[in-house]
Amino acid sequence: MKEFTIGNEDRARVLIQALPYIQKFMGKTIVVKYGGNAMINHDLKAAVIQDVVLMACVGIRTVLVHGGGPEIEHMLKIIGKESRFVNGLRYTDEETMEIVQMVLAGKVNKDIVSLIQQAGGQALGICGLDGGLLQARKLKSPAGDLGLVGEISAVKTAVLDDVLSRGYIPVVSTVAQGVDNAAGQSLNINADTAAAQIAAALGAEKLMLMTDVRGILRDVNDPDSLLQEIKRSELDRLIKEGTVSKGMIPKVDCCRVALDAGVKKAHIIDGRIPHALLLELFTDEGIGTQVVADGN
Amino acid sequence: MKEFTIGNEDRARVLIQALPYIQKFMGKTIVVKYGGNAMINHDLKAAVIQDVVLMACVGIRTVLVHGGGPEIEHMLKIIGKESRFVNGLRYTDEETMEIVQMVLAGKVNKDIVSLIQQAGGQALGICGLDGGLLQARKLKSPAGDLGLVGEISAVKTAVLDDVLSRGYIPVVSTVAQGVDNAAGQSLNINADTAAAQIAAALGAEKLMLMTDVRGILRDVNDPDSLLQEIKRSELDRLIKEGTVSKGMIPKVDCCRVALDAGVKKAHIIDGRIPHALLLELFTDEGIGTQVVADGN
Amino acid sequence: MKEFTIGNEDRARVLIQALPYIQKFMGKTIVVKYGGNAMINHDLKAAVIQDVVLMACVGIRTVLVHGGGPEIEHMLKIIGKESRFVNGLRYTDEETMEIVQMVLAGKVNKDIVSLIQQAGGQALGICGLDGGLLQARKLKSPAGDLGLVGEISAVKTAVLDDVLSRGYIPVVSTVAQGVDNAAGQSLNINADTAAAQIAAALGAEKLMLMTDVRGILRDVNDPDSLLQEIKRSELDRLIKEGTVSKGMIPKVDCCRVALDAGVKKAHIIDGRIPHALLLELFTDEGIGTQVVADGN
Amino acid sequence: MKEFTIGNEDRARVLIQALPYIQKFMGKTIVVKYGGNAMINHDLKAAVIQDVVLMACVGIRTVLVHGGGPEIEHMLKIIGKESRFVNGLRYTDEETMEIVQMVLAGKVNKDIVSLIQQAGGQALGICGLDGGLLQARKLKSPAGDLGLVGEISAVKTAVLDDVLSRGYIPVVSTVAQGVDNAAGQSLNINADTAAAQIAAALGAEKLMLMTDVRGILRDVNDPDSLLQEIKRSELDRLIKEGTVSKGMIPKVDCCRVALDAGVKKAHIIDGRIPHALLLELFTDEGIGTQVVADGN
Amino acid sequence: MKEFTIGNEDRARVLIQALPYIQKFMGKTIVVKYGGNAMINHDLKAAVIQDVVLMACVGIRTVLVHGGGPEIEHMLKIIGKESRFVNGLRYTDEETMEIVQMVLAGKVNKDIVSLIQQAGGQALGICGLDGGLLQARKLKSPAGDLGLVGEISAVKTAVLDDVLSRGYIPVVSTVAQGVDNAAGQSLNINADTAAAQIAAALGAEKLMLMTDVRGILRDVNDPDSLLQEIKRSELDRLIKEGTVSKGMIPKVDCCRVALDAGVKKAHIIDGRIPHALLLELFTDEGIGTQVVADGN
Amino acid sequence: MKEFTIGNEDRARVLIQALPYIQKFMGKTIVVKYGGNAMINHDLKAAVIQDVVLMACVGIRTVLVHGGGPEIEHMLKIIGKESRFVNGLRYTDEETMEIVQMVLAGKVNKDIVSLIQQAGGQALGICGLDGGLLQARKLKSPAGDLGLVGEISAVKTAVLDDVLSRGYIPVVSTVAQGVDNAAGQSLNINADTAAAQIAAALGAEKLMLMTDVRGILRDVNDPDSLLQEIKRSELDRLIKEGTVSKGMIPKVDCCRVALDAGVKKAHIIDGRIPHALLLELFTDEGIGTQVVADGN
Repeated sequence: MKEFTIGNEDRARVLIQALPYIQKFMGKTIVVKYGGNAMINHDLKAAVIQDVVLMACVGIRTVLVHGGGPEIEHMLKIIGKESRFVNGLRYTDEETMEIVQMVLAGKVNKDIVSLIQQAGGQALGICGLDGGLLQARKLKSPAGDLGLVGEISAVKTAVLDDVLSRGYIPVVSTVAQGVDNAAGQSLNINADTAAAQIAAALGAEKLMLMTDVRGILRDVNDPDSLLQEIKRSELDRLIKEGTVSKGMIPKVDCCRVALDAGVKKAHIIDGRIPHALLLELFTDEGIGTQVVADGN
Repeated sequence: MKEFTIGNEDRARVLIQALPYIQKFMGKTIVVKYGGNAMINHDLKAAVIQDVVLMACVGIRTVLVHGGGPEIEHMLKIIGKESRFVNGLRYTDEETMEIVQMVLAGKVNKDIVSLIQQAGGQALGICGLDGGLLQARKLKSPAGDLGLVGEISAVKTAVLDDVLSRGYIPVVSTVAQGVDNAAGQSLNINADTAAAQIAAALGAEKLMLMTDVRGILRDVNDPDSLLQEIKRSELDRLIKEGTVSKGMIPKVDCCRVALDAGVKKAHIIDGRIPHALLLELFTDEGIGTQVVADGN
Repeated sequence: MKEFTIGNEDRARVLIQALPYIQKFMGKTIVVKYGGNAMINHDLKAAVIQDVVLMACVGIRTVLVHGGGPEIEHMLKIIGKESRFVNGLRYTDEETMEIVQMVLAGKVNKDIVSLIQQAGGQALGICGLDGGLLQARKLKSPAGDLGLVGEISAVKTAVLDDVLSRGYIPVVSTVAQGVDNAAGQSLNINADTAAAQIAAALGAEKLMLMTDVRGILRDVNDPDSLLQEIKRSELDRLIKEGTVSKGMIPKVDCCRVALDAGVKKAHIIDGRIPHALLLELFTDEGIGTQVVADGN
Repeated sequence: MKEFTIGNEDRARVLIQALPYIQKFMGKTIVVKYGGNAMINHDLKAAVIQDVVLMACVGIRTVLVHGGGPEIEHMLKIIGKESRFVNGLRYTDEETMEIVQMVLAGKVNKDIVSLIQQAGGQALGICGLDGGLLQARKLKSPAGDLGLVGEISAVKTAVLDDVLSRGYIPVVSTVAQGVDNAAGQSLNINADTAAAQIAAALGAEKLMLMTDVRGILRDVNDPDSLLQEIKRSELDRLIKEGTVSKGMIPKVDCCRVALDAGVKKAHIIDGRIPHALLLELFTDEGIGTQVVADGN
Repeated sequence: MKEFTIGNEDRARVLIQALPYIQKFMGKTIVVKYGGNAMINHDLKAAVIQDVVLMACVGIRTVLVHGGGPEIEHMLKIIGKESRFVNGLRYTDEETMEIVQMVLAGKVNKDIVSLIQQAGGQALGICGLDGGLLQARKLKSPAGDLGLVGEISAVKTAVLDDVLSRGYIPVVSTVAQGVDNAAGQSLNINADTAAAQIAAALGAEKLMLMTDVRGILRDVNDPDSLLQEIKRSELDRLIKEGTVSKGMIPKVDCCRVALDAGVKKAHIIDGRIPHALLLELFTDEGIGTQVVADGN
Repeated sequence: MKEFTIGNEDRARVLIQALPYIQKFMGKTIVVKYGGNAMINHDLKAAVIQDVVLMACVGIRTVLVHGGGPEIEHMLKIIGKESRFVNGLRYTDEETMEIVQMVLAGKVNKDIVSLIQQAGGQALGICGLDGGLLQARKLKSPAGDLGLVGEISAVKTAVLDDVLSRGYIPVVSTVAQGVDNAAGQSLNINADTAAAQIAAALGAEKLMLMTDVRGILRDVNDPDSLLQEIKRSELDRLIKEGTVSKGMIPKVDCCRVALDAGVKKAHIIDGRIPHALLLELFTDEGIGTQVVADGN
């Protein structure tokens, strides 16, 4: 890290500026979807871990839901797995699903746990199978059968409550228990969607989605055109207008799911900015786009 | 399963015969090392899961520590990993360690969790990294540097107590946090040894090691020469005499570790017998060899 | 007991067959009315005690309500008490009531408690006076004044909850506190009725009435014509048809009281079969007649 | 009750005078042996009940251990039981023991419970069989075999703690579980002795023995010669001198047992005085004799 | 105190007469407004302290709200403060408010706490600022601006519940946090009104206002014309008739506030009678006037 | 406050830099003696309040003990009180003591409480009388009788534990209960000493004394000669050498008292530096002098 020249007096001031935010979020539940560059770049990763440990330390019930696409790709390549596609979408066969579960629940998840522990936090890594957290059915996609891809049918939050109440940060891999096949085959769940549904089921205060973009931009080519706050009710219009498009649409759908279940705010933030979580939580302006329930 | 012709009256009698054992072990902690054939054969596996769920149901604080050698072999073969050997012992390089962690914590562990949940139990799968459960140093082997193989330096039982107190069966993969290298690299731990040290740290009532042999035999060629009970103090003599030899020696060493730390009994049982756990726990004669502390 | 030749493997299977039932009833409340031959025959008695201890061990909140007619008769004979009758029904005078209370709460109750304790269970014997459990008014019988016979006006379940929460099996004598006479004279309550009203007040999962018949028979002379399951709504028809008649009518009325207050199932079982409770609870077919709420 | 002419101002003063005693005994355990005239005379009985309810109300953990000799005599007479004597001491055969248990645990005990409940208190009547409270061996008497008379070998206080912690006054009949005979036959225990041993096992603050005499008198013919306080160490001398003699000796032995186990004071009080318990507890001078540990 | 000649037997009777009252108020919350002569006269003061300690000892959740007019007057005189009047009402400027807070929260409050502690009770002295107990706006008086006089806008009872749950008697000075001025200036609150609103917010069983009159008299010149009980609905008529007039009107208004918020009874009692609190609580007739909710 | 130009990235870094300190002190008890300029200057005061609220928010059990000399002086001047001196030390007569108590417990204490509440914290203001916190004897001074000045004879920490456990910051005025005079007269206690003894009694992690100097200086005229850390064992030498002299000696004595009772570190810090508490706690170098136990 480059040299840090902030004087002591300013240090104290920064801490004191954080105080109202700490007071505001104490005891509240915040679900963070961790993914993208912030999971790849070493320094960004370290910063996220610190943010999450700090959040837990100041009394925020923090749930970390992670993805792991690139690591899965990497492993599939190593074993020389050829992907099959159905109308352009990847088909998840049994062997692929095994790799997905191993990489997510065995590697990505436990590496995050290890980093949190080394940073002085207390973490416990689980997946959707533990305590029956995530129940899913096979996804009915208009594109055709995608194999072992699931959509969540139930979130049993008891295991999260148990883990949180004992002072751990639950780190969650989004592998779910299949409930519509005899063998109880595991199903792969999109991590953004899982985070949104977990936030919904927990009645979380916030859902924070880490992405690789600035947030929702009025003009996609102008990073300064960031929309800092959007009402839930404006989302349809923004999609129709094309302001929200392509990869941003599923993110926005996740926000909708969470807000409609009672979550107060959903944040789309730029994981490429170091300490994006703290900056979004602990400064007035934040750094990304927040979608707020209409009543708020 | 073949047809079951036991009459109702006999059923009731069996349950009642189990009663004193249930009363005896209620609220006690039992650490089971799960491995060998019982993890490979489908029917044996189902039986172990049922045994463990039943044990938890009747109030036994059950900790399941598992191995996974064959699954690791299988994965290493798939990725075409060539093993390097040091004086005949496999060297664990970083890539191998990654596979070990993925397979144990991501596949074997979560598959067991899923089976327990489907059998109506409540399980939570962790590894030695979660909550800092297992701390380890690199193993100093007389054979030379074996790479990322560890020996346990500390067991932080808090996470097990938390998980048990909330009513879950902890399922434990024996990947540990390295404490003597800057990067905090994960280390691979022998599962028998880990189970013994976990039993020791928890002050468990029993350690049960599932193996692929009948137990300790007076005459290794005569399966009827099973020693049903051995005193802790007899172990040295049995080794010197050659009654305990080869692969049985490390098993017996695990028993010693557990007993010397206050565990009451250590059992070496034959995982090839269906419901070996129940039979050892819930019948007078048991089915394997139990090593008892000298005072008992 | 005759020799027991079930092999070990079968023993384990029986236990595992019991598992789903154990899971089903864990933490649920079951009220057992204990009476008839099962209270007289020494072996049957021992079996009931074992059943109840096992039920408590596997987490069932078990309440044992007992009768004691024969023991009361016996004692009245010893003291040479002549019974007075009112239109064919026995009149309970003060002296009789004293004997009833002494025999039920002092002898039958405490003998059961002692047997449970000796079988390794934890029991606490109470009557309707303890903690104000049963409040009653004098029964207004169409036959005329029957003396100190009561009908329950209130069940204060706090004392049962306290006793259950501390891990004891409450053993209950059905002597109640009279509330409509200045002296607060004890009143005698029919044990079946008391069990039904206690089950109702506790919101129990089940009421199990032990009788000296097979259950409800379609043809009273054919023991093979047992009705294994009846809906609550069928009871009236069965009485009208005469399938349910004589001594079975009050039993069926008790079932009705319990079901109408939210108890899920009421069982009429044959106490002459050893381990009738376990067999009814832990096998699919059961051994008696169960009356189920219409919704179930 | 005769008319009560104390003015309001004086009433308040009496309450205030009681305050330091209330503060002194709050949260402390006091074991009362209830017996003698105070159990026979109707008004005295009502007064004892009120005293005990008041004691519980002001936060004293009150345990009431009762006798019942006269009621047992009465019942034995009714059934026409001829007593057999061994060197002048009554022999307790099985039939007698049954009557003892019935009368104590079924009649006397539950009648007291009922009175406490009617006085607005919360009581739970138990005997030595409940929760395994009293374990006993057959008494080895120098006079010869006395039948089913026991001496306590163990007091399991858990059941008393459970009952007290839930806010009930435990009312205790002194029937014990025999532990040295296969059948687990109940044994009869002297109530004074049982009270002393219960006080000892609970580490009670006080043992209060209700008798039919004024206390220990210096001159047995002069009621004004009451010894208000005696040191534990003076007892031997008082017996040798003859000041303590005959029926008072076993009472004094009970005091000794309690004091030697850590009870602070043992009181011998005159149950013939209405509200003897309150007067002893809530006035400086008390009304009987208190035996104090030497250190106090 | 003059000599006390009540015999022991009578003492016990008084205690027993108190028993039903103790049972009635156990665990209930009673708010006492302490003021007038009872705060000035040394003996009366000692008696109030004893009453309050006794109330707490027998399980009443007792909240003591005090005034302090004369002490404030005295201090203002010492510092030579000239009072300013607005249409005949005193104006509270900043300096006066400082004195009010110092005298109430620093002197009167802590002196009461000290007396309770010395009498063996446990007290904790707070004011409306502690834990944000009392929030207030400046009082809009028809007479004009009265300065720093407030009317309560919110009562945050959490701090009282915390203090009561830990076994302390909260002693409350009625200084409130101003919420409608930037500086958060303290405001002075009338103690009667504060007591009424605290009783209302706590859902107290009773509000007891200590005054320097007998209660509400039918004929203000005839102390024997005391109205012992009035219905809430009769208050308007009594005011219209003139039976309630002058200084009694605000007292009656306080009763109204409390009753309308669910308090069961409000008592106007004569603090000049020693132990007025006990006499009102623990005797049937009481000593003052009680205003009861119409339903009661 | 002057403009604040720290960028967002730096803000996050400051928070993250604070993390290890937060983790270090979480759940630990820290006693702060608040006094000097930091209680007079408006901005410094606001900064202390913020520091204390932040400390509580991040899980530090913070106890604030305050002085109030200047405010007492001011009040004594207002009432025109002439001070009497005994060998140069002020004599505290009854009237002065009354003012001391009023100013400390009624004004200074409650003003701090109000500021904490307005800053979003939860505070409860008590003095040594509340819950019997501080018991004291009259100070035996070599200078002669100083009147109502006390030295602490006992600290009853229960009230602090109760207040802390409920989540409040206890704000403590150092007025104590006199225990060696019949009237139980309040005694004035030096606030530094009281803070040290409270820290000692609580087994606090730290005692922090706010002063108006930089700390202990090697050369009293050179503010850059600050001794950042001193061992407990060096104190005697420093006093002998004259490095510690005059007003610093009693401060150092307080450190000694705390350390000798098991407190880990005692800090002498400069209250004139804004946010001195945070800077001392949350930066490595700190800003004052810390005296550490020799073992540490």
